[in-house]
Amino acid sequence: MNFTRTDIDFAQELDAQDELDPFREEFVIDDSNLIYLDGNSLGRLPKRTINAMNRAIEEEWGKRLIRIWNDGWINTPSDLGAKIAKLIGAQPDEVLVTEATSINLFKLVVAALRARSERTKIVSDVFNFPSDLYILQGVIDLLGHRHSLELIPSADTVSIAPEAIETAIDVDTALVALTHVAFKSAFMHDMATVTKQAHNAGALILWDLSHSVGAVPIDLNGSGVDLAIGCTYKYLNGGPGSPAFLYVRRDLQNQLSQPLWGWFTSENPFSFILDYKPTSGIARYTVGTQPMLSMKALEPAIDILLEAGIDRLRAKSLQQTEYLIFLTEQWLVPLGFTLGSPRQATMRGSHVSIRHPESYRVNRALIEAEPPDVTVIPDFREPDNIRLGIAPLYNTFAEINQAIHRIRTIVEERIYEKYPDERLAVT
Amino acid sequence: MNFTRTDIDFAQELDAQDELDPFREEFVIDDSNLIYLDGNSLGRLPKRTINAMNRAIEEEWGKRLIRIWNDGWINTPSDLGAKIAKLIGAQPDEVLVTEATSINLFKLVVAALRARSERTKIVSDVFNFPSDLYILQGVIDLLGHRHSLELIPSADTVSIAPEAIETAIDVDTALVALTHVAFKSAFMHDMATVTKQAHNAGALILWDLSHSVGAVPIDLNGSGVDLAIGCTYKYLNGGPGSPAFLYVRRDLQNQLSQPLWGWFTSENPFSFILDYKPTSGIARYTVGTQPMLSMKALEPAIDILLEAGIDRLRAKSLQQTEYLIFLTEQWLVPLGFTLGSPRQATMRGSHVSIRHPESYRVNRALIEAEPPDVTVIPDFREPDNIRLGIAPLYNTFAEINQAIHRIRTIVEERIYEKYPDERLAVT
Repeated sequence: MNFTRTDIDFAQELDAQDELDPFREEFVIDDSNLIYLDGNSLGRLPKRTINAMNRAIEEEWGKRLIRIWNDGWINTPSDLGAKIAKLIGAQPDEVLVTEATSINLFKLVVAALRARSERTKIVSDVFNFPSDLYILQGVIDLLGHRHSLELIPSADTVSIAPEAIETAIDVDTALVALTHVAFKSAFMHDMATVTKQAHNAGALILWDLSHSVGAVPIDLNGSGVDLAIGCTYKYLNGGPGSPAFLYVRRDLQNQLSQPLWGWFTSENPFSFILDYKPTSGIARYTVGTQPMLSMKALEPAIDILLEAGIDRLRAKSLQQTEYLIFLTEQWLVPLGFTLGSPRQATMRGSHVSIRHPESYRVNRALIEAEPPDVTVIPDFREPDNIRLGIAPLYNTFAEINQAIHRIRTIVEERIYEKYPDERLAVT
Repeated sequence: MNFTRTDIDFAQELDAQDELDPFREEFVIDDSNLIYLDGNSLGRLPKRTINAMNRAIEEEWGKRLIRIWNDGWINTPSDLGAKIAKLIGAQPDEVLVTEATSINLFKLVVAALRARSERTKIVSDVFNFPSDLYILQGVIDLLGHRHSLELIPSADTVSIAPEAIETAIDVDTALVALTHVAFKSAFMHDMATVTKQAHNAGALILWDLSHSVGAVPIDLNGSGVDLAIGCTYKYLNGGPGSPAFLYVRRDLQNQLSQPLWGWFTSENPFSFILDYKPTSGIARYTVGTQPMLSMKALEPAIDILLEAGIDRLRAKSLQQTEYLIFLTEQWLVPLGFTLGSPRQATMRGSHVSIRHPESYRVNRALIEAEPPDVTVIPDFREPDNIRLGIAPLYNTFAEINQAIHRIRTIVEERIYEKYPDERLAVT
């Protein structure tokens, strides 16, 4: 993709040619002065969700009461899992929507370490979500510090070198636990290759798909992946804190044992017997009764994504992130910005980080703008990243043009100087 | 309370005298042919919740998008915890609404066992939720079978003898983990006495309040309780699978260490540093991002309960369960029913179990009735309990009269014979 024009007319032409443009109508977007580039933190509200929630609350909970469970609600974790399976190259009975990402990570990490009990190393990388690393550190502490955590380094804060990965994974490695698309730089691991490396060393592999599900095509089965987790409130638009998902490859489901022995993981919950017997299959990997209103909000959101199709979404996302980088090079690099994401499209997820010494204050100026100035909502990520998330279901080329233009104006006119840097010193 | 009249007019007189009767108007109740006696499994839908959810979805998520977190949503677990604290005799900063009951149990049990590492016994009882026992068994398995689980027996399936508790708790006991009100028989432990026994032996104590919060007065601080958990979808009317709560006594919060090192439990989440440092206080006991739509449904529901007042609710509940037992003695005992709950009011929670050899089929006949017969929804609990839950916020004396009368009719006229027993043999 080679862009040459920076004018807004051209952006509007791109929107006019975009076959996914009608999907923007699926979302509640009523503030024309707001450009939302944070769908990778919290996706927008689908209109269908409003109706689905009214039905779930007033018709189902309100009128059916306890009977909703037998009406089918009890199967929601596996029903939603089967839908997500289509987005990540898994079988319907390999995915479950349940609990929070960190809890699912805990379950699967403990299960994996127990399955490789003779090995003592967990491999991750410096790009992983700190929250994932904290869970890993907690597991190591819980299991008596028999394991070490080795973080693959990055030489440039943008990408991870293949050699660094190869060096880290060895015969001591029990588990490789990585996030597929890095939350800061958007660097995307080569899932198939790294999975093969882990398996060649005899290790299990776990992928966190939080920043890639719904944004890039994922083929867990095709890559031979053992375990995966992910959240649903980013590109899946499930709503604030919507329940997470987990994937366990079919042949591993009965081999592994997760440590949170919840009621619904038992063989026959309504027998109320006092001694635990695990059930078989993917159901073994849930824990408690699920927060059903949050679960119910997720269903129509995934449907929209399936209708758009992940390949079309990826194609649009690549075109949009390329366009964003083109405008950055034209307008922002001359002002001192650098690209905080890989330049090569195939190595990126669906967001782009740009860096500037004044990113924190620029980010404040974007978010705290007052009309008639346009408000732009990205995310700031330490130490100097403005993270611009592209949600191809609803973001337009015109929005990208306006957003980068606004950043240019804020820096050129030193508007950011009005916004103090109130961060606490991080020790 | 001595009742002498079984006629419906008398029930209606009791309703007319009931000062809590107006609270029934707070709930969506639009089927006059349905008597819901399962508020101890899933509470009814408060009308306020409908408005609160519309606002949370359309105004807050829909319009404020990611900014909702800074608008205050990020404090929801502690804000809701402070409200629940008022119901359970705790300080506002000792309670957190977060995750599911089983996950909270896991966190606190591991924390407790680590704090009493030289001791090897966990004491519970045969009345505990099987799901709680499963979590305990899973923890024992995870920690390498260094602990044993001793279940205090019941001689009569209705209550637990004080001597049996005294015998079980000894100097090897690390943790006493009990459910305050038993889910089948409604037997209520003497919280203050048992807590004292645990402390005298040097053990920590954890109470599961799922079947008592919102139904009976609880004084955690006054009883010196260390740890507690509970769910919010029963008497608190939080909605299907609404998030659970946990309590950690203030002086223990920084002493104990729970094993699920979630992002929000870290000292400075937005610094994104790679090494975990726990924060202090109750926040240390959450894990992931919470399912906010389910959280938001809970807030108005707790408010209603606080307005009614737990002492008035308990007084009405006692009057209603006594009335229920009176009618059972008059109408059902002659038909072969026995009481599956303690006869003494102070030893009961807010539900009553009645037992009959044909309870399973009677329960089906109650639930599957067709108009003009009234539908009654209780719960069946193995092997022969019909569990009748009294939610004094919305249940009436007239409903109780009609429900017991309907059970009488089903047995007298052998209506239950139309409903086969399709239970699978429990092995």
